[in-house]
Amino acid sequence: MGDFVTLDHGSGGLASHRLINELFAKQLGDAAPDQIDDAAVLTVPAGRLAVSTDSFVVDPLIFPGGDIGSLAVHGTVNDVAMRGARPLWLTAGFVLEEGLPLDTLARIVESMGRAAGKAGVRIVAGDTKVVGRGQADGLFINTTGIGVINDGLDIGVDKARPGDALIISGTMGDHGATVMAARSGLGLDAPIKSDSAALNHMAQALVEACGNGLRLMTDPTRGGLATAVKEIAQASGVAVELEQAAIPVDPAVDGVCELLGLDPLYLANEGKMVVVVEQGLAEKALETLRGFALGSSAARIGSIVGNTPGRVWLNTAVGGRRVLEMLTGEPLPRIC
Amino acid sequence: MGDFVTLDHGSGGLASHRLINELFAKQLGDAAPDQIDDAAVLTVPAGRLAVSTDSFVVDPLIFPGGDIGSLAVHGTVNDVAMRGARPLWLTAGFVLEEGLPLDTLARIVESMGRAAGKAGVRIVAGDTKVVGRGQADGLFINTTGIGVINDGLDIGVDKARPGDALIISGTMGDHGATVMAARSGLGLDAPIKSDSAALNHMAQALVEACGNGLRLMTDPTRGGLATAVKEIAQASGVAVELEQAAIPVDPAVDGVCELLGLDPLYLANEGKMVVVVEQGLAEKALETLRGFALGSSAARIGSIVGNTPGRVWLNTAVGGRRVLEMLTGEPLPRIC
Repeated sequence: MGDFVTLDHGSGGLASHRLINELFAKQLGDAAPDQIDDAAVLTVPAGRLAVSTDSFVVDPLIFPGGDIGSLAVHGTVNDVAMRGARPLWLTAGFVLEEGLPLDTLARIVESMGRAAGKAGVRIVAGDTKVVGRGQADGLFINTTGIGVINDGLDIGVDKARPGDALIISGTMGDHGATVMAARSGLGLDAPIKSDSAALNHMAQALVEACGNGLRLMTDPTRGGLATAVKEIAQASGVAVELEQAAIPVDPAVDGVCELLGLDPLYLANEGKMVVVVEQGLAEKALETLRGFALGSSAARIGSIVGNTPGRVWLNTAVGGRRVLEMLTGEPLPRIC
Repeated sequence: MGDFVTLDHGSGGLASHRLINELFAKQLGDAAPDQIDDAAVLTVPAGRLAVSTDSFVVDPLIFPGGDIGSLAVHGTVNDVAMRGARPLWLTAGFVLEEGLPLDTLARIVESMGRAAGKAGVRIVAGDTKVVGRGQADGLFINTTGIGVINDGLDIGVDKARPGDALIISGTMGDHGATVMAARSGLGLDAPIKSDSAALNHMAQALVEACGNGLRLMTDPTRGGLATAVKEIAQASGVAVELEQAAIPVDPAVDGVCELLGLDPLYLANEGKMVVVVEQGLAEKALETLRGFALGSSAARIGSIVGNTPGRVWLNTAVGGRRVLEMLTGEPLPRIC
């Protein structure tokens, strides 16, 4: 079908149909969307669904540990899973730039199919648009995810209470540091890679282990751990105390951060979760997380406290104490 | 909040939160997405959902009769409605180019809110990413829609049978001709405008009027009427005979098409539907459509026939007969 994406691939006519049949259907396999009808039909039980949408614009398209295709699956699967839902279905919307090599597109679509299969979600609807050269940067992907929430589960970012434990499922900053290093032009050859991964199976295990002692799960993506914890503090009307020494950071990531002037607490993660559980369940939650490869470095890193609602305190490794705010200042664009 | 979109608006930090609170929440009103949690929670009855996704990249962003915001609502509402579903929820994912005037963004978001309100759908989740100058073209929007399908309804693009009537809800080519004219640089001042509109209320009335005598509904967007009818012929394994003289085309649209060398049968529509019903219900279906302003020019334009499966015949206005194929050749990029 030619070597590059052309405007004709987005026309809705014959070339579009060929792209869908010869690339998307083939690479996504069973996950391929039914493209003929205007919408897919899903059968659901009565109850609650979790729905989330995310557009992915990461630069570069392919990076150590993943690519925009796997990232687009993981990111949305994780957002749905953080609500305690079992993600079942995804939609995928592509905006392609004219001139994108079809090989690159094929590799990314194949990676999406693999990621969806591994996470156990099906891509049920799709859409492709093509814009001219210079009107996009290679390829953007939107994914929207739908999952089913167990009856009776009541978790959310506003549910943290004083006395609760705050846990993180692994090292901080891997994804952000990897993308920034890949883009830095410094020719860094650091042994780091993105943590991009689907959290849904681990999240579901946590829901089963902790029941309603689980207050909330959230994935610290853009804005990093600091921003995610600040959101918890504000939404729940509580303060949070973090222990810097307890926060796991890969030494190689730390090295890249020093070199590039980045703070791992503000860097995006794409396969990690922040968990708040009632105090008595902290050990059980840690054990559950550590039962998964993705959670092997899980650690308790802080506590919810009652004074100064909305405030996040960091007790530093050298014995100081400072306030953490949301990410401001130098933006890190196109990190996901 | 400044006059232009900056990279900081997409960082996930403070500037992102402000953009969401001060623009999206304000303009979308009740339709504003809950942005704090990772996913929205929806309560659904047991049964079938229709789900559709679409990315919108229309150029120009604002055109006679609509803009990318209203178009993004209508397009996805219609795709869900064509499955016979009642669209209830939308998600919205924005990719913004650095430097986009915030006034433009505000106008478009406000227009989305109005369109969603009028269609009776709620925007339940959203996402905003910002890319650098020259890495997108102003603004792209993905919408994903979810609707509930009535029990027992069984329609689809593969359900047409020989003997059925083929109906169109109004004039063909308005949206495509309007966008191409606006972009032509010819300074055309034609009295035409996009037909962009939500079809869900009219579609639901048709479902109620025709029951299972309704075979399918589809909206002829990219690729136009010809491509939509060809898809029906192929999916249902039938042939279709269209009467050119019966196909309504606005004279001003016809004029623009002649000037620009376009064929209205291949131009996108954004507020029209193709309907196939069993023969005996054709009049009832036409009456139902004509009861809506959007369907006032509804007409029966053809029949399903049994020979030559997959073939679409056009009996021309001058007494000839030709085969219609899907759109090929000169693409019309960024029409929606």
